[in-house]
Amino acid sequence: MKFIEKLSAAWTTNNSLLCVGLDPDRDRFPAHLKDQPDAIVTFCKAIIDATADLACAFKPQIAYFAALGAEGQLEEICRYLREHYPHIPLVLDAKRGDIGATAHQYAREAFDRYGADAVTVNPYMGFDSVEPYMAWPDRGVIVLCRTSNAGGSDLQFLDVGGIPLYQHVARLVADQWNRNGQCALVVGATFPEELAQVRAIVGDMPLLVPGVGAQGGDVAATVGAGKTANGAGMMINSSRAILYAVPQDGEDFAAAARRVARQTRDDINRFRN
Amino acid sequence: MKFIEKLSAAWTTNNSLLCVGLDPDRDRFPAHLKDQPDAIVTFCKAIIDATADLACAFKPQIAYFAALGAEGQLEEICRYLREHYPHIPLVLDAKRGDIGATAHQYAREAFDRYGADAVTVNPYMGFDSVEPYMAWPDRGVIVLCRTSNAGGSDLQFLDVGGIPLYQHVARLVADQWNRNGQCALVVGATFPEELAQVRAIVGDMPLLVPGVGAQGGDVAATVGAGKTANGAGMMINSSRAILYAVPQDGEDFAAAARRVARQTRDDINRFRN
Repeated sequence: MKFIEKLSAAWTTNNSLLCVGLDPDRDRFPAHLKDQPDAIVTFCKAIIDATADLACAFKPQIAYFAALGAEGQLEEICRYLREHYPHIPLVLDAKRGDIGATAHQYAREAFDRYGADAVTVNPYMGFDSVEPYMAWPDRGVIVLCRTSNAGGSDLQFLDVGGIPLYQHVARLVADQWNRNGQCALVVGATFPEELAQVRAIVGDMPLLVPGVGAQGGDVAATVGAGKTANGAGMMINSSRAILYAVPQDGEDFAAAARRVARQTRDDINRFRN
Repeated sequence: MKFIEKLSAAWTTNNSLLCVGLDPDRDRFPAHLKDQPDAIVTFCKAIIDATADLACAFKPQIAYFAALGAEGQLEEICRYLREHYPHIPLVLDAKRGDIGATAHQYAREAFDRYGADAVTVNPYMGFDSVEPYMAWPDRGVIVLCRTSNAGGSDLQFLDVGGIPLYQHVARLVADQWNRNGQCALVVGATFPEELAQVRAIVGDMPLLVPGVGAQGGDVAATVGAGKTANGAGMMINSSRAILYAVPQDGEDFAAAARRVARQTRDDINRFRN
């Protein structure tokens, strides 16, 4: 099944636009896990089990694994996701960006090694740095467009021919790069009016939207600005606010994560229609 | 020792601007190595030993390791480099690009895990995606500016305020981002006149220059356009042309690599003064 079809099915089945980001930071794990050798896998599997019926996608952030030499654990988590929740898209957040032969190696990493349904990539090196990923026709290629960090404006807000660079990237992807319907865009939630501009440019193309939750993006404004006509079209990512939710009333960490994930999904849904 | 000092010393000691890229592609290994389980390590160590007195830097391309799940082998190669050739800078070609906390994880990967002296990074997400690497004050941060692929022009050649985006990036890095003298830039060899433009903008800042050798960049034009007043300032990278040099007259692959590396270094040196 194509990425976009799998994502659309997950939007419907789980009635959710929530993407759960997996950024495992051992320092923030519950005390009883911290010293376990397999803590990352145990933690992520528990989060996945607790939120899989509430999410439209899971998004592991590979940097957290790479810093620790924990690629083997990431492989195990991805395998677990594919086996237990094959209907939920697995988005590898890697933001890779390199040319031809090297990009092909990164595509092998994302799609063959980790079995990701989609991967995030950086547009700075142009189309031929994105094209190699499209040799996997059933996978998604999610191009960075407008990012939610303060410094995002350094380049993305530069004026190119009367529009900011991020809108130019959105046009490039929508009009030229999206040859097989495999593309999506990353657009941060911190600037809802810009999210609306991108939506106007790209039609129904899916948007991966980080920045709600711990990063403080406003849910109502985000959903209003980014949704498609049928009230979907987004993977709204929350990572830390869910992963490190503070337990209440005797909850364990997974129950706390589930409570916040459900709340976030429901908050999002209130503004979809 | 700071990255820039280590690099300057290597330019002098080895009388070389040649950076040897380590892009190990098992399909192109010599027949007797192909089936060895540790072929990547054996191959790269042999290349390193054969060229270490001819190079100003080694640059492993992490994608080739990541595609194979060979991060352990990359660790071993980096350890070998640091132990046997501590005076030659180790540049990790990773082209990472992500925000704050995630960029910090990538910096840990490059500098703590692999012990790299410098890492390549992508500017699209702005200064706060580059700044976390500067918490390692003795390491280098090599920012993508103008890349040697055809699609490089898609974004990098866009006009922003009368100059192409890549020149704007060069100015940003030179005037604002290079706070601790840690920065360098990636500028491809395929466009010598653009290399000259960047050199005019950034003064003596080191440039990592891919695109000679297999990619076909012209050595005379590249050196003429990119050198500093004292005939240095560049890491001119060649990967495949050295790694997969065709043996002559009974040479083994390492001797062939050495011959081509020496030729390339000497070709470069002819145009330095």
